[in-house]
Amino acid sequence: MKKSPLAPDSFPELPIIKGVQFATGQTGIKYIDREDVMLAKLSPETTISGVFTRSTMRSASVLDCQSKIGLGTEQGAAILVNAGNANAFTGSDGQASVNRISEALSLKLGLPNSAIFTSSTGVIGEILPDHKITNCIDDLKNTLNERSIANAAKAILTTDTFSKGSSATLDIDGKRVSISGIAKGSGMIAPDMATMLVYIFTDAKIGQIDLQKLLKELSNRTFNCITVDSDTSTSDSLICAATGASGVDVSKSSRFSKSLEKVMLDLAQQVVRDGEGATKFITVNVAGAASDKDAHKVAMAIANSPLVKTAIAGEDPNWGRVVMAVGKSGAVANRDRLSIWFGSHLVAERGQVAKNYKEASTAKYMKQSDLSIHVDLGIGSSSSTVWTCDLTNDYVKINADYRS
Amino acid sequence: MKKSPLAPDSFPELPIIKGVQFATGQTGIKYIDREDVMLAKLSPETTISGVFTRSTMRSASVLDCQSKIGLGTEQGAAILVNAGNANAFTGSDGQASVNRISEALSLKLGLPNSAIFTSSTGVIGEILPDHKITNCIDDLKNTLNERSIANAAKAILTTDTFSKGSSATLDIDGKRVSISGIAKGSGMIAPDMATMLVYIFTDAKIGQIDLQKLLKELSNRTFNCITVDSDTSTSDSLICAATGASGVDVSKSSRFSKSLEKVMLDLAQQVVRDGEGATKFITVNVAGAASDKDAHKVAMAIANSPLVKTAIAGEDPNWGRVVMAVGKSGAVANRDRLSIWFGSHLVAERGQVAKNYKEASTAKYMKQSDLSIHVDLGIGSSSSTVWTCDLTNDYVKINADYRS
Repeated sequence: MKKSPLAPDSFPELPIIKGVQFATGQTGIKYIDREDVMLAKLSPETTISGVFTRSTMRSASVLDCQSKIGLGTEQGAAILVNAGNANAFTGSDGQASVNRISEALSLKLGLPNSAIFTSSTGVIGEILPDHKITNCIDDLKNTLNERSIANAAKAILTTDTFSKGSSATLDIDGKRVSISGIAKGSGMIAPDMATMLVYIFTDAKIGQIDLQKLLKELSNRTFNCITVDSDTSTSDSLICAATGASGVDVSKSSRFSKSLEKVMLDLAQQVVRDGEGATKFITVNVAGAASDKDAHKVAMAIANSPLVKTAIAGEDPNWGRVVMAVGKSGAVANRDRLSIWFGSHLVAERGQVAKNYKEASTAKYMKQSDLSIHVDLGIGSSSSTVWTCDLTNDYVKINADYRS
Repeated sequence: MKKSPLAPDSFPELPIIKGVQFATGQTGIKYIDREDVMLAKLSPETTISGVFTRSTMRSASVLDCQSKIGLGTEQGAAILVNAGNANAFTGSDGQASVNRISEALSLKLGLPNSAIFTSSTGVIGEILPDHKITNCIDDLKNTLNERSIANAAKAILTTDTFSKGSSATLDIDGKRVSISGIAKGSGMIAPDMATMLVYIFTDAKIGQIDLQKLLKELSNRTFNCITVDSDTSTSDSLICAATGASGVDVSKSSRFSKSLEKVMLDLAQQVVRDGEGATKFITVNVAGAASDKDAHKVAMAIANSPLVKTAIAGEDPNWGRVVMAVGKSGAVANRDRLSIWFGSHLVAERGQVAKNYKEASTAKYMKQSDLSIHVDLGIGSSSSTVWTCDLTNDYVKINADYRS
């Protein structure tokens, strides 16, 4: 797979998080000649929070994680992720696979079963050959180290074309606090209260319940505001682990919250930049809505419209299709109060094409790879921003290939 | 544009409806060398009902029609449709254009302005050069005749690759009643309480209010159950005119209602068969749902999923994506009660792949051009059927072409 034209130049240097060790390995479940499993081991007293897909068809590992979050990780914890098989819609066999992997890890690492979290990503509906994972556990355990987060980011990819990482460091009371996160995701991206697979580690000190609350709130402004193709995965999982190794209590720190949001937004946007077949990164901002819900509805209607997305793929400032998407969204709107901008180009106002609209200069703007659509409904004061990519031949090609 | 591989062999022979005359002409608004305007003149005592898009960005002609439906057509009525310019999001200029066309027709045909209905289809946001239409009115009036419905069906097309028509005849109390309908539509198809442009004519005798009620009810089972691309048009209009010339009162006839539904469903399915870029016609049936609303939600989630639609384009029986769509739909569902069939092939049951599932024979089935997906949620007794097409490279190509 060719690297996305919207990919960052390189994987960022992520700070080491004290209390977190990584190892990666090769199970051979689906991919040949690449690592496809990662293990993260968390030190005692780490708190772990997570948000997960609300799909009614949640995968076995998602259901298992949800049942364990909050049970306590005083003795430490572990996260294991495999790529190539989602272990979703695999019935009771799926749960049995998760149990066998958790039990094996629990024994080898000397941790309670309830502190073992697993994720699986890949094809839906195929039985997970879990012995291929448990066979790797000794090797994984023996190679755990603090520096391998970049390898971990690589081992969890499926149709992604680049590894996704982001970090933040901040000084609080003279002490350094660090956050490092990794993510995977490219198609089946329209997260619902969570995202694809995301793992964020920090040496901050924060209680499990506080971290859970914060994570949920920040997800709504970051991962729940991206869409590649309007299709919500059965495996979306975001897990955040705080080791407390910095000794800094951040439970009331708005600076920590802002830093964590920055990392989450960066990872979310990297998922969009790796959207299947994407050639354009699009920020959709809606203002002047009657309610936050309406603003988000309109922004998502634009961001998910195949006609808007194909027009952008064709570099066509086809603002009539944005009007169409506003119209179908179900939000309160009034034709004669609606204004639309492509970048700084006002294209439509008061129910018709803008007086000074210049097709040529707007068409030129559309050739950029990072674009913004701004819509003012002119009704109220609520706003929303979401991020998406265009819909290209390559999206169809990637997903029409037999059992991609 | 190449004709859709799903097109019927030829345009059907439609029965003449006494009391309806057609004329077609060439305005030169957008297309060169083809007819792009149609006029239908209805005899006195015809009743006219209509259902229209619920988009908040409705076009000027839709708003105008909605204000006129039910005002009375005792002296007769007329319907004028142009293709190439939608007169949508054209502010007060748009309404002024509709007024000028209505006034001109009203004068020439000797009908009240309130009995003139217009529709426009094509690009959104461009001012309609209405003089190019009014210039044609004399010619249109002079060529009105009962036999030209096929030409009318052709004159209203935009990105369509074939003309759509359907009819029914039935004998009631020894008298013949006929129904003839035409439609256009290919992209921006996810009708909401109506459809693209549809005109149905009958010589049955039925009051305006009864006809309106019937039309709304039947729309919910026909046009509101199709989707090409989940995008709802600003111009969707379905107008039904009953001339009463047969002398048969059908206001309480379930046989008439069934015949009308058959014509509406046939036209709706023809719109799907002409879906932009379509190579597969797909019937999605959902049973065992907790409510009608849930059944429709799940069926539409499957029918609108880009991942399901691209898999079908690739002839891949990727039922995992159907599971995903059920999961994201928001309807009550339970993994362990869900069953899925592709045609007669049971692919998944009780939360996992079916015991006797044969990939090879199902993959062979996927090569057919007419496919069905049947989902049983195993929860309740409600069901829903919707119709859609696949998502192909050609859809992207058609819509990424500059200002298609």
